[in-house]
Amino acid sequence: MPQAVVLELIGEKLPLYPAKYAHGLFFALLSRINPELAQRLHGAPRKPFTLAPLPGEGTFVLRFTALDDGLFAPFLRSLLEVAPEGLPLGDRPYRLARVLATPEGHPLAGVASWEALRQVPRREKVTFRFLTPTVFATSKPGGRTRYSPLPDPRLIVGSLLDKWQAHSPFPYNPKEEAALRELFALDLEVVGFRRLHFHRVQAGKGFFPGFTGEVTLRLWSESFEVQEALGCLHALAFFSGVGAKTPYGMGLTVSL
Amino acid sequence: MPQAVVLELIGEKLPLYPAKYAHGLFFALLSRINPELAQRLHGAPRKPFTLAPLPGEGTFVLRFTALDDGLFAPFLRSLLEVAPEGLPLGDRPYRLARVLATPEGHPLAGVASWEALRQVPRREKVTFRFLTPTVFATSKPGGRTRYSPLPDPRLIVGSLLDKWQAHSPFPYNPKEEAALRELFALDLEVVGFRRLHFHRVQAGKGFFPGFTGEVTLRLWSESFEVQEALGCLHALAFFSGVGAKTPYGMGLTVSL
Repeated sequence: MPQAVVLELIGEKLPLYPAKYAHGLFFALLSRINPELAQRLHGAPRKPFTLAPLPGEGTFVLRFTALDDGLFAPFLRSLLEVAPEGLPLGDRPYRLARVLATPEGHPLAGVASWEALRQVPRREKVTFRFLTPTVFATSKPGGRTRYSPLPDPRLIVGSLLDKWQAHSPFPYNPKEEAALRELFALDLEVVGFRRLHFHRVQAGKGFFPGFTGEVTLRLWSESFEVQEALGCLHALAFFSGVGAKTPYGMGLTVSL
Repeated sequence: MPQAVVLELIGEKLPLYPAKYAHGLFFALLSRINPELAQRLHGAPRKPFTLAPLPGEGTFVLRFTALDDGLFAPFLRSLLEVAPEGLPLGDRPYRLARVLATPEGHPLAGVASWEALRQVPRREKVTFRFLTPTVFATSKPGGRTRYSPLPDPRLIVGSLLDKWQAHSPFPYNPKEEAALRELFALDLEVVGFRRLHFHRVQAGKGFFPGFTGEVTLRLWSESFEVQEALGCLHALAFFSGVGAKTPYGMGLTVSL
């Protein structure tokens, strides 16, 4: 079931490349417990987790979400086992001060079952707050990839539908999925945005453009099925993030 | 040849519905001189002019651009003939203080021949500054229209290409046009934006969403033809505006 935890880490200095080091730490912790799983994940085109360093005051805050039931428990177990000797981020050890797993502990932590996500009430209007730079990658003919750093409604909801289909135990069947994509393309409109900013950030091996800010989408379709799908995908965003490079800190999204 | 003039008007108060009144004034002036032309324009799906009220200090500033050679002269002649009795905007008369027709007089005024626009140097990177709220209207199946208030590269350049094809004496042939649209869709990327804001404004009979701000696009195509087209369309934007409702003050754009 989708879970989000927030880790508060304390070290002498803030790490130089937080997202890169966090990514390395995650795979090191997972390999300790289950090297096979770590290797399989490393090669997976769609990673069932997100990992985002957050700006904290004095402490270094790391948010981890898992979309795969088999992932959360081993990661957390390894984390807690290694914590006493210090968690290595780059070449420095960090002390694990707190693990926050509930919304009461941290607004970015929480848990929801896939069943509950599927039954989220239908929505005609949704607001997303993109907390870290968000970008959409599109493959073009000839193997080229283009990046879209704009909150295009079709790309936002399309990305969430991709993630739902890849990770949920209740994917839409191909016919439903195609119908949803078509209706979202026809019937979604941006009805407002606030504090939209452009960024260029390092994520993994490259630099990527991205946007942060808040966007409100309106669905004009009167179909209950489409409105239900929108409610569900909107709720998923909190756990899955939106767009590309979510295992490297991009696309961290809060659903309002 | 594309021309842009800035009119400084002085009245007791600023008009209540500047864009609507300016639109009415324009057609009233044109009808005086050439009722047939006014009627034909009124019914035209693609208007060969733009009209935008600008915020001024104390004065009311109106920018007018014409993309049609037969439009500029009769409009200006009628304007100057009526000016002494006062130009009606809504139910109040305004005095014409100045007509600025050159960039030295006002940065939003100027003239360029279609021939000169066609020969603008090729560009791989262009910046547009959207001074008034800009929106793209897309017709969807079933006669529905959707509005996109985001600086989508494909929509920006697509809108300019529509305007070039409709008004220029040197349109691309259908094969060239299709190739350009395809390459723009593949090879244009947003590489930066600044001060992007959302608005909802009245334009004609309705309210529309729109954005203002600055956007930089990068063309990855190495084709000289495509880069030349980008240079040309970028230069056209100053006269044609971008997107929908440009005769009602939306989409006023400066090319940087």
